[in-house]
Amino acid sequence: MPIIVVEVMPKAEILDPQGKAVAGALTRLGYTQFSAVRMGKRFELTVEGPVTAETLAAAKVIADEILSNAVIEDVVSVTELGA
Amino acid sequence: MPIIVVEVMPKAEILDPQGKAVAGALTRLGYTQFSAVRMGKRFELTVEGPVTAETLAAAKVIADEILSNAVIEDVVSVTELGA
Repeated sequence: MPIIVVEVMPKAEILDPQGKAVAGALTRLGYTQFSAVRMGKRFELTVEGPVTAETLAAAKVIADEILSNAVIEDVVSVTELGA
Repeated sequence: MPIIVVEVMPKAEILDPQGKAVAGALTRLGYTQFSAVRMGKRFELTVEGPVTAETLAAAKVIADEILSNAVIEDVVSVTELGA
């Protein structure tokens, strides 16, 4: 069955303590080529039947209203996997 | 500065309670075209300087050893953003 991938990241101006913790760990472990880490979410929505324009539109509404919090997060992408 | 994106998802055979909760909410709200939801993580690693083959290799090691738990999660992709 087709899968729609929704990606959500914290807004740039929002502190991301989890990402900061990972970045600190990387520096301590010697991975100094990475200066910052941000951590967000990735959802896979399994679709019943084919992915139509309407399905994708519904997924975008879901991404904006249910899967993300618009106050602190941005929806980075809503795409069909492998499309 | 360039960004490397690492995507991590729970393994298919692992229960994903957060995804299940979202799937239940979607059904209750009338979005019946989506039969399952799985929730994973998306990391953005900011790279100091250009992304070389070595940087990407280091990011893959980090993805496998630090950003994911191989017992319950799979690294889906390690790619340069926009590349």
